[in-house]
Amino acid sequence: MGCVPVSMKAIAVEPGAGTPTVIDIPRPEPGPGEALVRTLRVGVDGTDHEVIAGHHGDVPVGSDRLVLGHEAVGVVEDPNGTDLEDGQYVVPTVRRPPNGTNAYFDRGEPDMAPDGEYVERGIVGAHGFMAEYITSPAESLVPIPEELAPLGFLVEPISITEKAIEHAVASRSAFEWELESALVLGNGSLGLLTLAMLETVFDVERTYCLGRRDRPDPTIDLIEELGATYVDSRETPVPEIPDTYEPVDFVYEATGYAKHAVETVDALAPNGVGVLLGVPEPWTFEVDGGRLHRELVLHNKALVGTVNSHRGHFESAIDTLSQLPAWFTDALVTGVYGLEDAEAAFDTADGVIKTAVEFDGI
Amino acid sequence: MGCVPVSMKAIAVEPGAGTPTVIDIPRPEPGPGEALVRTLRVGVDGTDHEVIAGHHGDVPVGSDRLVLGHEAVGVVEDPNGTDLEDGQYVVPTVRRPPNGTNAYFDRGEPDMAPDGEYVERGIVGAHGFMAEYITSPAESLVPIPEELAPLGFLVEPISITEKAIEHAVASRSAFEWELESALVLGNGSLGLLTLAMLETVFDVERTYCLGRRDRPDPTIDLIEELGATYVDSRETPVPEIPDTYEPVDFVYEATGYAKHAVETVDALAPNGVGVLLGVPEPWTFEVDGGRLHRELVLHNKALVGTVNSHRGHFESAIDTLSQLPAWFTDALVTGVYGLEDAEAAFDTADGVIKTAVEFDGI
Repeated sequence: MGCVPVSMKAIAVEPGAGTPTVIDIPRPEPGPGEALVRTLRVGVDGTDHEVIAGHHGDVPVGSDRLVLGHEAVGVVEDPNGTDLEDGQYVVPTVRRPPNGTNAYFDRGEPDMAPDGEYVERGIVGAHGFMAEYITSPAESLVPIPEELAPLGFLVEPISITEKAIEHAVASRSAFEWELESALVLGNGSLGLLTLAMLETVFDVERTYCLGRRDRPDPTIDLIEELGATYVDSRETPVPEIPDTYEPVDFVYEATGYAKHAVETVDALAPNGVGVLLGVPEPWTFEVDGGRLHRELVLHNKALVGTVNSHRGHFESAIDTLSQLPAWFTDALVTGVYGLEDAEAAFDTADGVIKTAVEFDGI
Repeated sequence: MGCVPVSMKAIAVEPGAGTPTVIDIPRPEPGPGEALVRTLRVGVDGTDHEVIAGHHGDVPVGSDRLVLGHEAVGVVEDPNGTDLEDGQYVVPTVRRPPNGTNAYFDRGEPDMAPDGEYVERGIVGAHGFMAEYITSPAESLVPIPEELAPLGFLVEPISITEKAIEHAVASRSAFEWELESALVLGNGSLGLLTLAMLETVFDVERTYCLGRRDRPDPTIDLIEELGATYVDSRETPVPEIPDTYEPVDFVYEATGYAKHAVETVDALAPNGVGVLLGVPEPWTFEVDGGRLHRELVLHNKALVGTVNSHRGHFESAIDTLSQLPAWFTDALVTGVYGLEDAEAAFDTADGVIKTAVEFDGI
């Protein structure tokens, strides 16, 4: 006698060759040390759009499509003998070891693993979380309080900024550094989340957020409601920010616009640090490399690239999420769509800030 | 009745308009909190040559020339009521507050002071140490054991690298970082001192030093005697170092060649850090800024600019100096010249590595 595999819905894409579609795939079975998680909500971000366009990431070996999704929250359906509890709300981390494990995973720093030493669920080489059920090693499932679960899909992007700020602060830890002014490059959902963190959790006195939108615009409203200053890059390019506003102690780049990496140095105050998070394509252009170099040296400036995050950053992110004001997250999340409306979650029309797909009600 | 001021010999220059000459100036009198120091030896480095050429630094207000010298060792001639002792060997730090003091000096971090908040003796806005006597606040005079005094002029350049390495390590302190391979860009005296520190004090397993000299050359001999690999930039440009040798965990840039600032990112291994110390002139050239940005992000790389050093770095440098092998410092210091031969100390002919002017015997 055979058996009929239980199937489930998932959202997959052929990178560079299509739009995300709902497909039927077998429901996964948890292996040893893994729990089965019923997916509740999965966020959509810029990386998903880069994967869809074929600019970043890759399908799993042997597959011609990728199940999307790396910003998930779910509920444990079957602890399968792990320390997790039935009904516990969890957020999965993103990186997994490609073959067995390696030193980066062993010491809890998968975010520092180089190419070839990791896969990323929903991005590079492993299916993501946009499916009704997922399995995951228990140590990659971070418990989240029930009251935060509806916004649990924000934990992964917040964790990215937790890491970026941790690395920025570390780079300034050999001297007395005060983070009094900060500039976020980019008013997408990650930029806005970071701006909210800087304003409400890190208590940065003066914050700025750069975009290229005309008023009225909901992201500009959010920036100003947070108490930050909106900088229109068409009026005030990054290198002019010190003269127009002030040189800033901290720059957070979330645009993926390659000129911003070098212009960040111009925007920084002495002893400042810029963290880079965008992943641009190759692009050759002219740079005053002499001035860039001189500025970095004579004013003790630093540029720090950062990618991904580890479990500790997810835990910090859950604490941060609990501190973000409800009016902010209400305005940030512009749409949560059921599977039947999933395509709406990938819409990037004006007015859309942050969306998620809902696989099951909370 | 008047009095005849006691005069002394000093070495001064009109930046950009001449060569260093021996002049007579009044011997300084220590003010409150200052000691009088009889100068023994003062080193010459690339910054002196940049000052002489008029590319860096500035004369003191109201003066048309600058007494050179920022790498000094001397002996206390008159403690003048300070905690120092008569006959104590000391190395002066370089930065001083321009008017009274400020927060950077108050917290012992003059190296982090921005433009306008410091002068640098012998470089920017204050006369240097190339004079038979100098005065200095006691807290800017770092005691050095008598047996190290003959090489005390190496303490300041070593302190520059102490700071650079401290800031580099700090920037990697948010994760487990192992410094197993290092590349020094530049085989001048600072590059060679740094290479010796990495090899003999920091026990870095594999080190490389980049230059553009033909064999036979005494700096290449020194590099190889230290156990490092000489990289000829004419054969192996910086971006090709990973393929020809290996990607390195740490790059120390001491060339002032602006393309090295961006090429450093290519030479780094994942999670590596490059410290920049050169001070180039403006120079616009083409850069693949997209690849630079992407590399920094996806491989968690960092670039850290660093300038000057504080008293703590001088203290570490004295300890480091005590650990450098005598054969190395013997070969590094190619000439110590009395005042009558002072011009020889500024000669940059082949075979010259590190020189000093001797104002008084030790």
